[in-house]
Amino acid sequence: MEKFFSPRSVAVIGASEGKGKVGYAVIKNILEYPFPGKIYPINPNAETILGLKAYKSVLDVEDEIDLGVIVIPPELIPAAIEELGEKGTKSVVVISAGFKEVGPKGAQLEAQVLAKVREYEMRMIGPNCLGIISTHSRLNASFSAGTPPEGNIAFFSQSGALCTAILDWAMGEGIGFSKFISIGNKADLGEVEFLHYLADDPQTGVILGYIEGVTNGVEFMRAAQYASRRKPLIITKSGGTTAGAKAAASHTGTLAGSESAFGAAFKQAGIIRANTIKDLFDFAIAFSYQPVPKGQNLAIITNAGGPGIMAADAVERSTISMASLKKETVDKLREHLPPVAALYNPVDVIGDAKSDRYQKAIETVVKDPGVNGALVILTPQEMTEVEATAEIIGQVATSTEKPILASFLGKMSIQEGVRILRDWQVPNYAYPEHAVASFEAMVDYKRFLERPYDAGRHFKADSAKVEGIISSALAEGRNHLGEAEAREIIAAYGFSIPKNVIAATSEEAVAVAEEIGYPVVLKIASPDILHKSDIGGVRVGVADAGAVKKCFAEIVSNARRYSPDADIVGVAVQEMVASGKEVILGLSKDPQFGPLLMFGLGGIYVEVLKDVSFRVCPIHPFEAASMIREIRSFPLLRGVRGEKPADLSALEESLLRLSQLAIDFPQIVEGDINPLKVRYPGEGAVAIDARFIIKEEKG
Amino acid sequence: MEKFFSPRSVAVIGASEGKGKVGYAVIKNILEYPFPGKIYPINPNAETILGLKAYKSVLDVEDEIDLGVIVIPPELIPAAIEELGEKGTKSVVVISAGFKEVGPKGAQLEAQVLAKVREYEMRMIGPNCLGIISTHSRLNASFSAGTPPEGNIAFFSQSGALCTAILDWAMGEGIGFSKFISIGNKADLGEVEFLHYLADDPQTGVILGYIEGVTNGVEFMRAAQYASRRKPLIITKSGGTTAGAKAAASHTGTLAGSESAFGAAFKQAGIIRANTIKDLFDFAIAFSYQPVPKGQNLAIITNAGGPGIMAADAVERSTISMASLKKETVDKLREHLPPVAALYNPVDVIGDAKSDRYQKAIETVVKDPGVNGALVILTPQEMTEVEATAEIIGQVATSTEKPILASFLGKMSIQEGVRILRDWQVPNYAYPEHAVASFEAMVDYKRFLERPYDAGRHFKADSAKVEGIISSALAEGRNHLGEAEAREIIAAYGFSIPKNVIAATSEEAVAVAEEIGYPVVLKIASPDILHKSDIGGVRVGVADAGAVKKCFAEIVSNARRYSPDADIVGVAVQEMVASGKEVILGLSKDPQFGPLLMFGLGGIYVEVLKDVSFRVCPIHPFEAASMIREIRSFPLLRGVRGEKPADLSALEESLLRLSQLAIDFPQIVEGDINPLKVRYPGEGAVAIDARFIIKEEKG
Repeated sequence: MEKFFSPRSVAVIGASEGKGKVGYAVIKNILEYPFPGKIYPINPNAETILGLKAYKSVLDVEDEIDLGVIVIPPELIPAAIEELGEKGTKSVVVISAGFKEVGPKGAQLEAQVLAKVREYEMRMIGPNCLGIISTHSRLNASFSAGTPPEGNIAFFSQSGALCTAILDWAMGEGIGFSKFISIGNKADLGEVEFLHYLADDPQTGVILGYIEGVTNGVEFMRAAQYASRRKPLIITKSGGTTAGAKAAASHTGTLAGSESAFGAAFKQAGIIRANTIKDLFDFAIAFSYQPVPKGQNLAIITNAGGPGIMAADAVERSTISMASLKKETVDKLREHLPPVAALYNPVDVIGDAKSDRYQKAIETVVKDPGVNGALVILTPQEMTEVEATAEIIGQVATSTEKPILASFLGKMSIQEGVRILRDWQVPNYAYPEHAVASFEAMVDYKRFLERPYDAGRHFKADSAKVEGIISSALAEGRNHLGEAEAREIIAAYGFSIPKNVIAATSEEAVAVAEEIGYPVVLKIASPDILHKSDIGGVRVGVADAGAVKKCFAEIVSNARRYSPDADIVGVAVQEMVASGKEVILGLSKDPQFGPLLMFGLGGIYVEVLKDVSFRVCPIHPFEAASMIREIRSFPLLRGVRGEKPADLSALEESLLRLSQLAIDFPQIVEGDINPLKVRYPGEGAVAIDARFIIKEEKG
Repeated sequence: MEKFFSPRSVAVIGASEGKGKVGYAVIKNILEYPFPGKIYPINPNAETILGLKAYKSVLDVEDEIDLGVIVIPPELIPAAIEELGEKGTKSVVVISAGFKEVGPKGAQLEAQVLAKVREYEMRMIGPNCLGIISTHSRLNASFSAGTPPEGNIAFFSQSGALCTAILDWAMGEGIGFSKFISIGNKADLGEVEFLHYLADDPQTGVILGYIEGVTNGVEFMRAAQYASRRKPLIITKSGGTTAGAKAAASHTGTLAGSESAFGAAFKQAGIIRANTIKDLFDFAIAFSYQPVPKGQNLAIITNAGGPGIMAADAVERSTISMASLKKETVDKLREHLPPVAALYNPVDVIGDAKSDRYQKAIETVVKDPGVNGALVILTPQEMTEVEATAEIIGQVATSTEKPILASFLGKMSIQEGVRILRDWQVPNYAYPEHAVASFEAMVDYKRFLERPYDAGRHFKADSAKVEGIISSALAEGRNHLGEAEAREIIAAYGFSIPKNVIAATSEEAVAVAEEIGYPVVLKIASPDILHKSDIGGVRVGVADAGAVKKCFAEIVSNARRYSPDADIVGVAVQEMVASGKEVILGLSKDPQFGPLLMFGLGGIYVEVLKDVSFRVCPIHPFEAASMIREIRSFPLLRGVRGEKPADLSALEESLLRLSQLAIDFPQIVEGDINPLKVRYPGEGAVAIDARFIIKEEKG
C-alpha cells in the first residue's frame, strides 16, 4: 500500500493538455500540489505535457515507476496494465469508467483487466473512481477540483461524486484529511484492504467511509473490528431501505446486504454508524479534534436559556446523560456568576456574559469530576465577545483531557469565532442538537472500547450426528428436515427437548404417557403432514389414559380424512412443558454476512410488533446478553408486576449454542427454535419445536 | 395590534447616546432602518439624541404617540407606563429585564406594571424581551444587531437570545421576514394573541414560533387551530424532556406542560412540530418559498448515485413515498439521457450532466401526474454547470405548481448556485435528508388541511345523575369514587357494563347468579377494600350453584382475615364477559391543557411497552379513530393471523363518550376504564371496571 500513498514516482497513462479532460485534471493536480517525486506523463501523441517530458509508453521511462494512474479509454487498459507489469510497477489506480457499472460487456472487460493485474502480481484501485489523495506525501492523483488541507481524517468512498462533494466541503470548512480514497468498482482492492491499511496508518486518526455494499461480509467485519479497536471508524451505509436498495442496485451493481445484517455487523464490529452525510461530517470533526470522553455525563454552558434547554432535551432523548454538578462546583459558580444565572446544568451565564464569565464557568464546570465533557453554547448578543470567547474555549480545551464541543448560533457575527475554534481544534456545530449527537457518538465508541473482549464460548456437541442427519437428508434430495430430525440436531447441540416417543397404537401411547407423566401432548407422526395443528393432528393437555386413547383415535382419523395418502407412522406422545416464557430463536443466511441469528419473544411480539434483534454468527457472550436486552419487550423477560424473571443465562447459552451450530453447519440456510420455553432462573429452557431448511454447500 | 406593527409614531423611553447601552441600540435601529414615521427619544438628561430632539417625558411630546418602547430600569417603569397612559398611548413594548425571571420581587414589580397597563387599557409586549421588528413598516424597535430582509415569514419567540441567533442566521442566509416578535415574559400579550394576529396578517405567509410553555393550553390550541387552517404554523417547543423541563423552569419560570399533552395538542391543532431549531429553519424556507404538495410522492433527480440513494433511504424511513414514474415518463427520459443513466426514481442523470440534461430530466419528471414534488440533487463534478443548473431549477420551479427543493452538496464551488436558487425561491438544503424531511413536513401539513373538519359528536347522557354522585362524594369529603359509583357514572354516559348485583348471603348470591346466567364473577363488596384480588376477594368463572356457595364463603372469610375492620356489605355477583380485546381508556388532567385522554391495549402493552396515544379533550371522531390507529399494537385490534377484528367503531364511540364526560365534569382529575372489552364488529364493548378520582373545582 505504501506505493499507492507514498510513491517516489508516478506515471499518468493518458495525461493530456486538453482542458476539461480527466487526463489533464489528474496531471495538473499532481503538478500543482506539488508532488515532490518524479512525474511521468504517458501520451503517444505529445512531446511534452504541462512542461514535463512526455513518454510514448511506460516502457520508455528509464527509472522505476512506483505508481501508475490510468485515464485512457477502457478498451486500451488491459494493454496498458501489461506494459506497467513489464515495467515492474506494482500499484495502479484505474480512474477510467466503462466497466461493470455499464453492463455485462463492461464487466467482461473488468475481468480482463483484473486478470492482467493478477498476472503481474500488481494491486489495483478502481476502475471507475475519482483517484486517490495522500496529503502527507503531497500526492493528489485524482481529478478532484482541489486538494484538502492536511489532517488526520481518512476517507474512503464507494461513490466518486460523494468524494467530490466532501472534498468541496472539507476545503470550504478547512477540515484536514490524511488520505482520500475513491474505491470505485473495487475490482481488486476494496474496503477490507483499506480498513486494514488505514488502521495502522500513523497519519490517520479517524477513518470515515461511505459504502453501498460490501464484497465479503465476514472479512469486512474482521477488518472493521481490527480498525475500530485502534481508531474511531465512522461509516455511512446507504441503500438500507427498500427504495434505497433498489437505487443502489441500479447504481453500482452491488447487491445491498439486508439491513438487519448490516445493522448487526456494525454493532458487533464497533463501527460508528452515521445515518446521513451530515452525521458523518459532524462525528468526524468531534473525533478528529477532541479526545474520547471517559463517561457519558455532559455539561452544558450557555448564554441563553432557550438553546440550553434544546440541548438538554436532546441529551434526554439520547443514551447520554446530563452531568450532575457537585455542590462545590455550584458554590464556585455562584461566586463568579450574577445572581440570576442558572447554576445547575445547563449552566446559564446569562445574555450579558463576556468572555471572562464564560471562562470562569467553563473552567469550574470542567474541573467537576462528575463531568465527562462540555458543550459551550453561544448566541451573539449585545455584550457577547464572540472571538474572545472562542479563544477562551480553545484554551480550556487544550488544558483538559475532557472533550469540549461548541455550538455558536447564528451566521454573520460568529464566523470569525468559528474560525478561531477551528484553529484550536474545537468542533463547532451550527445547532446544539448536532453537538449532542456527536458527543453521544463519542460515548458510544468509548462503550465499544470498554466492551469485554471475550473469547467466545465453545460447547461440546455431537457434530458427527448432525453431519449424519444433514447429509442423509441431502442425499435423499430433501431440503426440509423433519421434526424428529430437527429435534435430534438441537439435542446434539445441548438443547433440552421434551421427552417424545412415537407410539404405533393407542395402548402403546398410554404406556408411554404413563412413563412420561401426565399431562402429555399428542401429535400425529407423519413425514407427509407439515401443518399438524391445521388438520386437527395435535392435542395438548391430555390428562389421563382414557383421554390418551380417545385423542389417539381422533388424531389418526383426522389425519386419514385430510391426508388420505399420508404415510402415518403413529402418534408422538410428548412431555408437556407448561411453564416458561416463550421466545423464538431464528437463523437465516445473509448473502454477504453468512448466518444471522434472530431473537424475539414468541407470538405477536415477533409477528406483529416485529420486536426482534439480530447478530451475525458467531456471537460472543456479550452479544448474546445484549441481543436479549435490546428488544423493547425485554422487561417481560426480566419480570414485570412482581413476576420472577426468566432464566436469562440459560437463554444466553441457547443463543450461543445455536450460533455454534450455524457456524459448524453452513448447510443450514434457515431455521428456528419456536418456541423455546425459558423457565425461572436455574430451571433452564426447553426447546419445544424446531425446524431447519438445508442446502448443499457449494465448493 | 396595528399600533405595534404599523405605528405612525414611536417614543423610546430611555433612548440614549451611550454606545453599548440597550437604549442606544434601540433608537439607532429605528433611525437607521429608517422608520418613516415620527421618532421621539425620551431622556430627561439629554437635549438631543442621535440628532433628534429629546424630550424629558412623553407628556412633553406635542403629537400622538402610537407606540412606546421602554428601556429604562425596571423600578421606573410603572411611572413611565402611567405617563404613556396619560398621553393616550395604547401600545407599549417593555424591553427592560428584571421582572418575573429574577424572582419574587421581580414578579411583584411585573404585577404592578401589568396593573398600570390594565388601568389605562393599554396592551404590552414583554417585559424582558428583545423588542419587535416589522419589516413592511420599516420598524425595528429592538436592540437586535441588524435587520433581516423583508419576506413572508413571521417569527415569535419566548427566548430573546434565540431571536438574536435567528436574526443573525436570517441575515447571513438572506431569508426574508415579515414580523419578528420577542414575547419575553408575556405578562400581557402572549402566543395566543400573536397567533390570532399573524393568522390574519396579509404580510405573513408562514408563522414560526419558539415556545417553552404556554399560558393557557385551551386558548393556545384554539388560536393555533385558527392560524394553522390559514397558513403553515411551525413551532419548536423545548423543555419537552425531564432535563429540558428542569432547565425551562429555572429559565423563565414557566411550568412546562407535560410532553404528552403538548404532543397531542400539536397534532390536534395542526401545528407542524420542529424538534430542533435546524428543522424550524429548514421547514420555514420550504413553506415560505414553495407551494404545498398535493400528495406524498417525491421524485429525486441527481447527478450522483450515492446521494440519490441516501435521499431514497430517507424517504423510505419517513411517511412519504418515492413516486413511481409512468412508462411514458421513463420512455421520454430514455430519449434524453445517456444509456447508463438510471431512468427510475431516483433518476440519475450521471456525473457528466450539464444543465441541459438536468433541464430535460426535471421537466419530464415534474410533468408526470404521479409526481407531487421533486428534489434535485447536485454534486459539483468536473463537467457540472452549477450556476446554469440552479437557473434551470428556478425556471422549472416557477412554471409548475409542484414544490421543487434542491440539495447542492459541497461548499466552495456551489455557493453562487445556492444564491441563484434563493433568488428563484427554491429552498436549498446542504444535505438531501433535510430536504426530504422538509418535504415530509409539507405533506403533513397538506394532510392536516384535508382532515375532515367534523363537528364532533354529542351523546345523550344522564349528567344529572353523575353530578349527584360527584357532589355527594365531595360533600362527604371523598376523592376516590367507589367501584359502584364509577360504574354508575359510565353507565350514565352510555357505556355497557356487566350485570352486577350485591348479594348479602350466599343464598341470595345463588339466586342472582341463576338470574344472570353462569359463569359469573364474585367480588367482595366493601368500600374499605381497594385491592380485592390481592386479598383473595375475587373469583372468576364460577360455574354453578355449589361453586357460588363455596366461593362466597371463601371470599368473605379471606376478607375478614386480611381486613378485620373492613365494612363488608356482601359479595358482588357479576356477569362474566369472556370474549373481547382488553383495552384501557384513561383520563388525566394536564395543568395547561385540561382533560387528557389516553388509549392503549390492556396489560403489558400499556405498562411495559408504554404503547399509548393521547389527545386533549374534547376529541372529534377523526381523532378517536386516529388515536386508536396510532399505537404500535394496533394490528392486534385489526386482527392478526386470520382473527376477526375488534369492534373499532364501538371503541371510537367509547373514546368520544369518555371525552364528553371529562369535559362535562371538570371535577374528574383522573380516571380509567380498565379493561374495556371490545368484542367483534357489531357486538360493541363492555366496560368491566372503572375508577375515578375527583376534586372540588375552584372558581
